[in-house]
Amino acid sequence: MKFCSHCGAALSVLIPDGDNLPRHVCGKCGAIHYLNPKLVVGCIAEWHDQILLCRRSIEPRYGLWTLPAGFMENGESTAAAARRETLEEACAQVEIRQPFAMLSVPHINQVHLFYRARLRHKDFAAGLETLETALFEEEAIPWQNLAFQTVTRCLQAYFADRKAGRFTFHEDELWPPGGLVAGIK
Amino acid sequence: MKFCSHCGAALSVLIPDGDNLPRHVCGKCGAIHYLNPKLVVGCIAEWHDQILLCRRSIEPRYGLWTLPAGFMENGESTAAAARRETLEEACAQVEIRQPFAMLSVPHINQVHLFYRARLRHKDFAAGLETLETALFEEEAIPWQNLAFQTVTRCLQAYFADRKAGRFTFHEDELWPPGGLVAGIK
Repeated sequence: MKFCSHCGAALSVLIPDGDNLPRHVCGKCGAIHYLNPKLVVGCIAEWHDQILLCRRSIEPRYGLWTLPAGFMENGESTAAAARRETLEEACAQVEIRQPFAMLSVPHINQVHLFYRARLRHKDFAAGLETLETALFEEEAIPWQNLAFQTVTRCLQAYFADRKAGRFTFHEDELWPPGGLVAGIK
Repeated sequence: MKFCSHCGAALSVLIPDGDNLPRHVCGKCGAIHYLNPKLVVGCIAEWHDQILLCRRSIEPRYGLWTLPAGFMENGESTAAAARRETLEEACAQVEIRQPFAMLSVPHINQVHLFYRARLRHKDFAAGLETLETALFEEEAIPWQNLAFQTVTRCLQAYFADRKAGRFTFHEDELWPPGGLVAGIK
């Protein structure tokens, strides 16, 4: 971030009065430009005892498997974002069941949120960012070829809860490989 | 948003290839500038059967009561954001208990997230954005003078759960007064 998006003048990085962190501040119009984490929202879409995974057709992690998920847009709710992303990535219509896992990923300024959802019908297909999409039983989950650590954690918690016969809400934070990695609660 | 924060050139609003929503796109360097919802994170800080509220010393809602909460920063987890905001607004140290409520507010592009937390000691004071801070029993909550609809909803769910003898995770979306307002689940 180098230029003011309001007036086009050059930005400086300094701590504004009354603040305690460095911000991008415009030297001309005085606007302060804050940077905040983004929400990535998606679904564990269930069809009986199977769940829906998508194989990515884009970087990062081209060719690896993930839950349908993506950046939440302005003007929508978290549940609407989860439904939309599942439709875009897997052409699948879901009914949201419950929020299931929220995982902070501070080193990339993201929070990943996954809902449990029910596939309305067994009708899905690869969206623009997907090579293929398929239903998996627990035994067939491609654990070694999952795209993101948050997806792995979410699915571990999901199958553990399913075995326990009850689904609760899970929350944790993930750090880069080699850094502190806490167990999902 | 009028100018590119990368190169300072003028932005146009158009739908990029492969996208389905209008975005701010730079005519010179081609950068696409996305706008995404922000997370506002805070605490219901408990001291025995009382909870901590702050009276705002800033707009919007100057003089009204709220839970300590604010914008999540890059580089932190949601739980860390809740602890930091409680320290900044009420000079209070808390131990996080559990995520309690997540409320989407689509018309202002925000998601409000509240944790249950335990005050470590009965030592608190007004922070820079607070006129005064105090502990309230349920009967004394200033319902008519709460600053935000999300705070009202969160506290209603909190006291209902406390009466029921168990705390669960609540999720809902709120719309402007006069629009659709769903009941908190």
